[in-house]
Amino acid sequence: MDNRTHMHPSTLRLRRLGIDIYQEAVIYMRRDCHVCRAEGFEAQSRVQIAHGEHFIIATLNVVDGDLLAPEEAGLSEAAWRLLGAQEGDVITLAHPRPLESRSHVRAKVYGQRLNGADLLAIMRDVTAGYYADIDIAAFIAACAGDRMDLDETVALTRAMIDVGERIDWDTRPIVDKHSVGGLPGNRTTPIVVAIVAAHGLTMPKTSSRAITSPAGTADVMETMTEVNLDVAAIRRVVAREGACLAWGGAVRLSPADDILIRVERPLDLDSEGQLVASVLSKKAAAGSTHVVIDVPVGPTAKVRTEAAARTLSERLIAVGRTLDLTVRTVVSDGTQPVGRGIGPALEAHDVLAVLRREIRAPQDLRERAVRLAGYVLEFAADVPPGVGYAHAKRILDDGRALKKFEAICAAQGGLREPPRAAYTQPVTAPRAGRIVGIDNRRLARAAKLAGAPRAAAAGIVLHAPIGTGVEQGRPLYTLHAETPGELAYALDYVEGQAPIVEVAPA
Amino acid sequence: MDNRTHMHPSTLRLRRLGIDIYQEAVIYMRRDCHVCRAEGFEAQSRVQIAHGEHFIIATLNVVDGDLLAPEEAGLSEAAWRLLGAQEGDVITLAHPRPLESRSHVRAKVYGQRLNGADLLAIMRDVTAGYYADIDIAAFIAACAGDRMDLDETVALTRAMIDVGERIDWDTRPIVDKHSVGGLPGNRTTPIVVAIVAAHGLTMPKTSSRAITSPAGTADVMETMTEVNLDVAAIRRVVAREGACLAWGGAVRLSPADDILIRVERPLDLDSEGQLVASVLSKKAAAGSTHVVIDVPVGPTAKVRTEAAARTLSERLIAVGRTLDLTVRTVVSDGTQPVGRGIGPALEAHDVLAVLRREIRAPQDLRERAVRLAGYVLEFAADVPPGVGYAHAKRILDDGRALKKFEAICAAQGGLREPPRAAYTQPVTAPRAGRIVGIDNRRLARAAKLAGAPRAAAAGIVLHAPIGTGVEQGRPLYTLHAETPGELAYALDYVEGQAPIVEVAPA
Repeated sequence: MDNRTHMHPSTLRLRRLGIDIYQEAVIYMRRDCHVCRAEGFEAQSRVQIAHGEHFIIATLNVVDGDLLAPEEAGLSEAAWRLLGAQEGDVITLAHPRPLESRSHVRAKVYGQRLNGADLLAIMRDVTAGYYADIDIAAFIAACAGDRMDLDETVALTRAMIDVGERIDWDTRPIVDKHSVGGLPGNRTTPIVVAIVAAHGLTMPKTSSRAITSPAGTADVMETMTEVNLDVAAIRRVVAREGACLAWGGAVRLSPADDILIRVERPLDLDSEGQLVASVLSKKAAAGSTHVVIDVPVGPTAKVRTEAAARTLSERLIAVGRTLDLTVRTVVSDGTQPVGRGIGPALEAHDVLAVLRREIRAPQDLRERAVRLAGYVLEFAADVPPGVGYAHAKRILDDGRALKKFEAICAAQGGLREPPRAAYTQPVTAPRAGRIVGIDNRRLARAAKLAGAPRAAAAGIVLHAPIGTGVEQGRPLYTLHAETPGELAYALDYVEGQAPIVEVAPA
Repeated sequence: MDNRTHMHPSTLRLRRLGIDIYQEAVIYMRRDCHVCRAEGFEAQSRVQIAHGEHFIIATLNVVDGDLLAPEEAGLSEAAWRLLGAQEGDVITLAHPRPLESRSHVRAKVYGQRLNGADLLAIMRDVTAGYYADIDIAAFIAACAGDRMDLDETVALTRAMIDVGERIDWDTRPIVDKHSVGGLPGNRTTPIVVAIVAAHGLTMPKTSSRAITSPAGTADVMETMTEVNLDVAAIRRVVAREGACLAWGGAVRLSPADDILIRVERPLDLDSEGQLVASVLSKKAAAGSTHVVIDVPVGPTAKVRTEAAARTLSERLIAVGRTLDLTVRTVVSDGTQPVGRGIGPALEAHDVLAVLRREIRAPQDLRERAVRLAGYVLEFAADVPPGVGYAHAKRILDDGRALKKFEAICAAQGGLREPPRAAYTQPVTAPRAGRIVGIDNRRLARAAKLAGAPRAAAAGIVLHAPIGTGVEQGRPLYTLHAETPGELAYALDYVEGQAPIVEVAPA
């Protein structure tokens, strides 16, 4: 037994500094405090923090000067949450024990295969917050490309499921839908859920917020209803309407994945194995039995070639099979944005326009949603293969989808109209010609500079897709912002760059 | 041209928070400040900071509440240094341009080979501080194990040399000596330098401070003389005495290596390619032409098997050849500490005891130093192969080495006696028997808990090597500390664990 803490209690009192570094746990301690001196802690040391029943491991940032009193420690916001701590609470500090699972990460870096127990140990420690971001980065790099085989991908998926919550349902099938991503405005989910639930299938949909994009499905839904549902609320809404459209972050489904993604995105490393585990662990943890996965292919989408889409599809289906999860993949066009709006409220307006069958509804969004809903419907016993599309179209056209969408929102707390931005500015064609290209990446960036997703009404409305002929001075897209400053800022960005929407002489 | 900064200057005023996170550049900004809102910066965003002529890229930590005023920004200590900024200075913030060299890191992660231009681009951006720690971690993981071939190792070494300073000398040979590390107390360098310089060879030695160990050669030398020498001071000392014993950190030799090591050590990933590039880039940048490299082999040393030592030796010699650097490797016993002292002053006392030919001088340290010095001497035109050892021994035995050491210290600012700790406590044998094992890793840990290397006199004195017979109650080692608290703390550690020095019944 380690009796050090009894003999020399290394304790400090917590003070709130209000520093948010996303999900990483950091502790701030004075270089000259008795704990740093006794324990030999230095800048970037990993420190074990105990507070009541909670233990976490945090990275030490050393403070010189008067930001903290000598007996005080600060925490990053993530560490406050993990510890459930309050200002003035006393914490106990110690050196963390070496993490055995790190030897598995090392083994993978050196090219060895990992088994289920190895990956479970890694995912456990990742979920507990025991890994520094650099350790996670090394693990991601070691698994990147095609360095995980099928067995390892299955084992990683199972490990991700095992370390989180899991929702069980007493009915089958439980259907779901996922898009692999990278395409602005591709907001088919609310429409698909409405159509599928209107038919009578059970679809308890949880979605993410934007991490690097101008809007996630949860951000879009939040402009229309309450999305912050816990498991009990999800069950209540699903019991009543057969479906929900909730934010997944309030439920701990595959929490390891959330942590890996936080490091994976800024690294910009694609790993097929991790992508598969990420998608399928969330679906399996949500209790899904049948999933349609949309794989958009395009030069600025996540999947860039048809061949890559095929390999990914095969892997998704094979791993799904081992989890008792029926996966159907749909390779779709990922060359340009879907719908008109980019940003939470603007995408919500597109969704409502499709559901309300308005003349101005974007047909490409409608078409994609109906197609995906059709595939999901074919999981139902009463929808034979090949007729799902027609079924889906009928449910949308006769208003049943809209009615179901309204009912789901009512069950989640009421439907409201998404806001409109107070400040708008069109960006026009510099010459007559034809639209030959749209830079999705910079379009998303401009929408974010205008304020999306933080400012719900902010973003961009695209007026014409690739291939459209335009006259000089005709608006190509319009910037939307909630403040004049943000509008001017986004405008500066688009004016200071090569055109985001490229017009070539006809 | 990007004219954004002129139209909407994103500026903030600097305030010193005194937060030290080692070498990583971090900026602290309020979530509600005009820059975060206009630029769309979020927690963990990478931010370009301009201050006069200096540009750096830092990671954003977002602050809620009153730690900063809305128009203020804070910086980590590393960022203050890199920017050369002062409290109250105004900085300009912007989104950094995408780093092209990151595509090379990705390529390496995906298993492709990198060429010289790729590696130079990566090392340039690393040295400029443009890489986040997670990017560096991914690069290290991608190069770990044997994933770098000979050509890549040569290219990495050249790239590391090219991005730093280089010292040229107008004489040949310029000799050097390096130990691959992992062995407490292995402080041969000051003795080797003294012997070799006494013979007349030129040996401008730069050494590092401890990063994770209880003492680096620079820490040891600092207990006896001034080590913080710039290039001009190094030239002056070497012109006078033919050698110096300086801290390498004041000279920017292979600065990329310093940054990689900062991430590599906590990751605990060994990469032969990076180890070779790290060692040889520093030697070549220092202007060395002939180097002896000591490779201790043992279960807790950096190199664990004879086979690994052979492969490493071959690689060091082959890469050295392409850099016009003659490398001779010496595989040595790495199973237990060398000398008696562990800690800056305690190791300095061992060094002085050997140089002064005291009866109590540790014979293992003396023997290793003479052997290494002998190999270095054989680089001299007047020392034929096979007689170096005898030459070295004579130079030590007749006092020339001591005289040279005193002269070097005098040239660096004067020789002083290393301090002695005020508080000591022996740890005794729990039973009669024979010493069968010493845990180097935990021994180093106990020395650090006693205060080393921060407290120069702190550390451990070992009283007997492996194989020695001991009686019950006889001291095995003694803890040295500068304060009673640190002594008690180190004692707690050694008492709360399995024995660090293992005694088996005879």
